[in-house]
Amino acid sequence: MKKPKVVVLGAGYGGIMTTVKLQKMIGTNEVDLTLVNKHDYHYQTTWLHESSAGTLHHDRTRIPIKDVVDFNKVNFVQDTVISIDPKAKKVILEDGELEYDYLVIGLGFESATFGIKGIEEHAYTINNVNSSRLIRDTIEYNFSLYNNEEEERPELITIVVGGAGFTGIEFVGEVANRLPELCHEYDIDPSKVRLVTVEAGPSALAGFDPELVEYAMNRLEAKGVEFKIGTAIKEATADGIVVEKDGVQEEIKTKNFVWAAGVRGNSIVEKSGFEVNRGRVQIRPDLRTPDYDDVIVVGDCAVIMNEETGRPYPPTAQIAIQMADVAAHNVKVMVRGGSEFKEFTPNILGTVASLGEGDAIGVVFGTRKLFGWMASVMKKIIDNRYLLKLGGIGLLLKKGKFNIFK
Amino acid sequence: MKKPKVVVLGAGYGGIMTTVKLQKMIGTNEVDLTLVNKHDYHYQTTWLHESSAGTLHHDRTRIPIKDVVDFNKVNFVQDTVISIDPKAKKVILEDGELEYDYLVIGLGFESATFGIKGIEEHAYTINNVNSSRLIRDTIEYNFSLYNNEEEERPELITIVVGGAGFTGIEFVGEVANRLPELCHEYDIDPSKVRLVTVEAGPSALAGFDPELVEYAMNRLEAKGVEFKIGTAIKEATADGIVVEKDGVQEEIKTKNFVWAAGVRGNSIVEKSGFEVNRGRVQIRPDLRTPDYDDVIVVGDCAVIMNEETGRPYPPTAQIAIQMADVAAHNVKVMVRGGSEFKEFTPNILGTVASLGEGDAIGVVFGTRKLFGWMASVMKKIIDNRYLLKLGGIGLLLKKGKFNIFK
Repeated sequence: MKKPKVVVLGAGYGGIMTTVKLQKMIGTNEVDLTLVNKHDYHYQTTWLHESSAGTLHHDRTRIPIKDVVDFNKVNFVQDTVISIDPKAKKVILEDGELEYDYLVIGLGFESATFGIKGIEEHAYTINNVNSSRLIRDTIEYNFSLYNNEEEERPELITIVVGGAGFTGIEFVGEVANRLPELCHEYDIDPSKVRLVTVEAGPSALAGFDPELVEYAMNRLEAKGVEFKIGTAIKEATADGIVVEKDGVQEEIKTKNFVWAAGVRGNSIVEKSGFEVNRGRVQIRPDLRTPDYDDVIVVGDCAVIMNEETGRPYPPTAQIAIQMADVAAHNVKVMVRGGSEFKEFTPNILGTVASLGEGDAIGVVFGTRKLFGWMASVMKKIIDNRYLLKLGGIGLLLKKGKFNIFK
Repeated sequence: MKKPKVVVLGAGYGGIMTTVKLQKMIGTNEVDLTLVNKHDYHYQTTWLHESSAGTLHHDRTRIPIKDVVDFNKVNFVQDTVISIDPKAKKVILEDGELEYDYLVIGLGFESATFGIKGIEEHAYTINNVNSSRLIRDTIEYNFSLYNNEEEERPELITIVVGGAGFTGIEFVGEVANRLPELCHEYDIDPSKVRLVTVEAGPSALAGFDPELVEYAMNRLEAKGVEFKIGTAIKEATADGIVVEKDGVQEEIKTKNFVWAAGVRGNSIVEKSGFEVNRGRVQIRPDLRTPDYDDVIVVGDCAVIMNEETGRPYPPTAQIAIQMADVAAHNVKVMVRGGSEFKEFTPNILGTVASLGEGDAIGVVFGTRKLFGWMASVMKKIIDNRYLLKLGGIGLLLKKGKFNIFK
């Protein structure tokens, strides 16, 4: 008897957790399980703002897939997904093709540029290990260049972050913390460095309680961060960005422009013919796509509506990880030919945004607000909890964050 | 009675050693001694190839001037020399002027481009702390960029060194040693990285014994260095260099081109009207310039002929340091109105070229050839000996190289 082929695309939070759960829930006698990923490692997307700022080495964010996936139970294919053909039930890879009976798409996010001119070409993004490491090295390179130039070039030591949402704020907090070290390393007068955050919306950290937002902005401003709120980025060029507020345009010269203002689902999903909204598939409650009973979407390529607010839940690691529980269960149901599909309901335990080592803001247990050290500890507990879930105590000890009293 | 004003320009090997000796030899009641330097630190030029490769932090090469110069005895002026007016006996600085009765010029070297098109604009140089740190950061930035590019761009991970003389070889040896770490840090397949040394002359390490040259080339080739000997660089561009051998031209694409093929004296000296040959003043045996009895030149701005070979001595730290002895004595003679000038005779104790940590070649005591570990230890002893001479045991313990058994 032919075993059904299950293929999981992507080893991000959703994909790897689905795989790890499936390898425990269902035997190799029942299923032929394959995981496809571009790299041989999983990485913690929620820690990348630290690697980008250079405050946490990217190797700390990476987990070798072989450390959490049992290659005796799972075929691991290191390759890049080019497209999916859901009608023919196959996946086109850079170096081949894969057929599937059941597919789990966990291909993650891309930056959304909202059509703003020049972002694609001139902005750096906190998307993956490679792009984050490049932000660190770009800042270092430009700071290094500064004292080698005949004329003053302030754009080299001006860092601009597009977006004061979750990622933008977390990144700027790390950079602010690192600036004293950077200035020392490169013999630069700290008073000459600019760290600017530009936000088109009416507030930083949209969705957070105003008291928390105020705390965050005060703390960051005290570290030298300039906020330009209600200010839209009109264009990015090789030498800076053009912003507009109340109809007045201004150029901010910078060679270090990081775009952290929006994400969308991986464009492979849209290109493969799935119906999407900002690259994300509006999935059924059991996580299957509207059109295909054999395709599940987890993580940032999926969109779930929050019935209370009437708006979609933001794509977070927390939701991706919770989706994996349901995805793994429903794959098992499909493989076994059952019909007891589980439905997915997000259970938002808490949301904590870091403001740099030792400081954070957050909401836990629904309404409990946290500031500063307490929030920072909570953030580390959340991170450590995930590692425990993914790879057990061994992984936690290897990759966990234990400097909670720092 | 007016005290004579002695001004020393530059805190490189020659300038700082002259100052340190003078402050011991002659009291503040006799002389008004001023040291002018662009930075508030002295640095070890002979260690910069390590900072450039990223194998030794530049702070290890730096010594705060206040640690070796007694500011109660010496006026320290942190400023940039623009020009010298030897007729009016004054020095024009960026932020003012200084008058002198006796002047010591120790303004060091610049890269000589030999008029090769594009070197000035597109090559990195191992000239000072800023330019060396920039080489490290440029290589890291380009390696970081490599995995972010849609198309393969081998020029990002190709490092080309122009010149297989002392500095070029020492630099390439350090880079070769660091490559495994760089490839690991940036997830790059080491077999794709190229490390090329281009030398116009008929041999690497001109002036060294052929047996030593062969040893050096073999060792470096074993670490992956490609040598292109008898190959002239015709042009440097933003994307690489054009070389020519036996009338055949070839382009080598690189974003990491380091020019280490020649030095000349600081151009300020030539611009100030002193008669020079490749920027260097052909000084009298007592180190004074041919035209001015009150101006002494030490270090790389001075040229001394080797009577035996009929060629000038290469500008080295060793000679600069030895010149400082004579310079300080002769300044004292001038200040006191005597006539017992000392004449300078170089005493070449040894010449050791590093091939990267733990390996070197050299000649000591005239003809004794050294290889490998022995030569490497000798190199560190020479370095440590200088620190002891400059700042005593305290400085030696702080900045010395003690990993001699590594």
